[in-house]
Amino acid sequence: MSPTTAIQTLLSSRYIVPVEPLDTVLTEHAIAIDNGRIIDILPRARAVEKYAPNTHLEYDQHILMPGLINAHTHAAMALMRGVASDLSLMDWLQNHIWPLEKQHVDEQFVQDGSELAIAEMLRGGTTCFNDMYFFPEVTARVATAIGMRAVIGMIMLEFPTRYAASAEEYLSKGLAMFDAYKSDPLITNVFAPHAPYTVSDNSLRKISQLANELDLPVHMHVHETAGEIDDSLRQYGMRPLARLEQHGLVNPNLCGVHMTQLTAEEIGLISAAGVNVIHCPESNLKLASGLCPVQALQTAKVRVLIGTDSCASNDDLDMFSEIRTAALLAKGVSQDATALSAQSAIRAATIDAAHALGLGSEIGSLEVGKSADIIAIECNSIESQPHFDLYSHLTYSTDRSRVCDVFVAGRQLLKDRTLTTTSEDDIIIKAKHWSDKIASSSS
Amino acid sequence: MSPTTAIQTLLSSRYIVPVEPLDTVLTEHAIAIDNGRIIDILPRARAVEKYAPNTHLEYDQHILMPGLINAHTHAAMALMRGVASDLSLMDWLQNHIWPLEKQHVDEQFVQDGSELAIAEMLRGGTTCFNDMYFFPEVTARVATAIGMRAVIGMIMLEFPTRYAASAEEYLSKGLAMFDAYKSDPLITNVFAPHAPYTVSDNSLRKISQLANELDLPVHMHVHETAGEIDDSLRQYGMRPLARLEQHGLVNPNLCGVHMTQLTAEEIGLISAAGVNVIHCPESNLKLASGLCPVQALQTAKVRVLIGTDSCASNDDLDMFSEIRTAALLAKGVSQDATALSAQSAIRAATIDAAHALGLGSEIGSLEVGKSADIIAIECNSIESQPHFDLYSHLTYSTDRSRVCDVFVAGRQLLKDRTLTTTSEDDIIIKAKHWSDKIASSSS
Repeated sequence: MSPTTAIQTLLSSRYIVPVEPLDTVLTEHAIAIDNGRIIDILPRARAVEKYAPNTHLEYDQHILMPGLINAHTHAAMALMRGVASDLSLMDWLQNHIWPLEKQHVDEQFVQDGSELAIAEMLRGGTTCFNDMYFFPEVTARVATAIGMRAVIGMIMLEFPTRYAASAEEYLSKGLAMFDAYKSDPLITNVFAPHAPYTVSDNSLRKISQLANELDLPVHMHVHETAGEIDDSLRQYGMRPLARLEQHGLVNPNLCGVHMTQLTAEEIGLISAAGVNVIHCPESNLKLASGLCPVQALQTAKVRVLIGTDSCASNDDLDMFSEIRTAALLAKGVSQDATALSAQSAIRAATIDAAHALGLGSEIGSLEVGKSADIIAIECNSIESQPHFDLYSHLTYSTDRSRVCDVFVAGRQLLKDRTLTTTSEDDIIIKAKHWSDKIASSSS
Repeated sequence: MSPTTAIQTLLSSRYIVPVEPLDTVLTEHAIAIDNGRIIDILPRARAVEKYAPNTHLEYDQHILMPGLINAHTHAAMALMRGVASDLSLMDWLQNHIWPLEKQHVDEQFVQDGSELAIAEMLRGGTTCFNDMYFFPEVTARVATAIGMRAVIGMIMLEFPTRYAASAEEYLSKGLAMFDAYKSDPLITNVFAPHAPYTVSDNSLRKISQLANELDLPVHMHVHETAGEIDDSLRQYGMRPLARLEQHGLVNPNLCGVHMTQLTAEEIGLISAAGVNVIHCPESNLKLASGLCPVQALQTAKVRVLIGTDSCASNDDLDMFSEIRTAALLAKGVSQDATALSAQSAIRAATIDAAHALGLGSEIGSLEVGKSADIIAIECNSIESQPHFDLYSHLTYSTDRSRVCDVFVAGRQLLKDRTLTTTSEDDIIIKAKHWSDKIASSSS
């Protein structure tokens, strides 16, 4: 009997780590994809009997898993990779990052920087990123052109930049983008007020109202450093989280980034309120911002996501490294080697992130009906031998360089480690141009 | 005028980071190599006028730097990569690692495991490793066969294994190896008493005498966990470091691994005594052993080295990742973003390690007269753009997958990411054999 059902793509694989259901690893299975969606997951032998795919890719020494979700980026800052290291946070910001941004960040910078960042992320197995930066509609346009999925923040802060002159202008530009991308299959928008210390009470109230009305996530830096807490106590007589609560922002839509400074009461508060925490371990370490209590958060059933932060404080967009660092650091901080297990860390970077960002029915796991956002990881190299538990292998032993193929909504964006929808050479040339420009201005 | 001086190899490069002198980066320079040694470092244009090399390799988009020194390994345990994760130290050791070792570790295991480990290390830019494991002469033989440099520990502990039945037998086998490799150009030997809690007072005294007589480094786990301190207080009425001091081991020959538990007095003691600390940040995190006070140690002028520990607690032999984790973690632990700067971290993994291991005149920097242990790192990929300060780039943005060529004593062991002196396919086949064996025994 010859196969009867015509489909777009069949991916057969030695291993599949679907993330859902829990604790599941499939061996010698296949994923059937049509119209960009997963329509079936079944044993490899049965798949070739049942389906007649346009394309059949066979991954004989590979793991297929859902694409990673980088839950906190300032993508365009890829052009500032490593521009200022080993500096304290305020020295880094005030004497290096802010002056460089003031001088260089325009539409062209954001376009070229977003391209570089998206290229790096795709090559490392990230298929969706949650971004906060200036000229967000440019980043959305670049992501769409390349075919990458993105959650693009409607950024807002009180000080003027080339992008917007006032809080009102940030918001109106953000909402215009929101309207433009409403029915886009790859782009969703969330509110992205920068931080409690850069956004006024008035603006927080406005965003709170709008986020409730539209039921949209709010992506915001919260409790990054002890200094932020002290400043807030001085200026507002309360801790930043209390201020956000006052304005109705402490609810399941809040995705608070960093959260290194949390009292036991605050952990109780965000647990009860359903707030999500976006953990950026490498950035927190590099800037000596503080240590996020991941183990305590997970014990309190707070959903934890993982993000790289920008290339200026990390200095890469490598989610495999970030997952590993998160899993390792959680153990060191809690003095408990069972903290943030391999499976929990992988879930934080996939299904948990999808739920928090309002994409839980679309991505984050390999399940029938979801978008085919899938990565293939080679596991036959010297560095991959031996492997026992695959969650452990993915968390503690997998470099991003082992990612060979990447699909977003069924479209192959990386093939044998080469991007298919954009030119790596062009991106590198543009990055070198900016590198020269930035180096000459910062010296 | 045609070049007159015939030499073995000339390596021309866009960038050279020689590590010594401090703060130096050379652009468009070349390294002349003859008889396995660096005989000249000079501008690229002058080099081609002066030298007629048998082989001239041109690295137009690369960084040349000294090979990395992995200061703490149990190489053969590469075959136990990720066999037991997310477990507390004693559960991990007593219920997983020790039973597996008892069942599997023989000469063949050490041979196949050492091959796998050396292959992984070379592919990641490590040209020398400081090893402590059973059947050390097997690891020495494998390293020699492949052409890798190694510091092989004369391991000693009080309990019997298939390798040795008693402390005396460990020592006599170790000293036999020391005699056999005395004039080997790639292998040196050091004493490797396992830890204060596995070695008796009597054995510590013996090793102390011998190490002083022979002026050899002593490679030993010291103050890895708080539990180790408590046990020592109960059993000996003093902390392990005090016990080592009592037996004359607290001196510049001591390379104490981990050292996560140190009082201010102890930091003063090891500083005054010239003790070296081998920092294994990823292992310490994964096993929740504790946090090494790297910033305080460096402030006290204690020399800090960096090691991966074994693949059973890391789970890789990736020195670029370990350098990055060390630099990041030092900042988080000290709450000071200037702690363990990029340059300090690279020095810890090169010249500082060389000095502590008695190889300061041979390796650890690219200087005339030293052995040509050199790695070439490609810096033209998406992930490498842009780069400003090269120390920062090497520490925070360089994956080991960017290492393309590796030389030890002038001999090319990695060429375009392929090993030249051993078969990667054979190593993978053997690793899979062991993987099946271990998986069936541990289930």
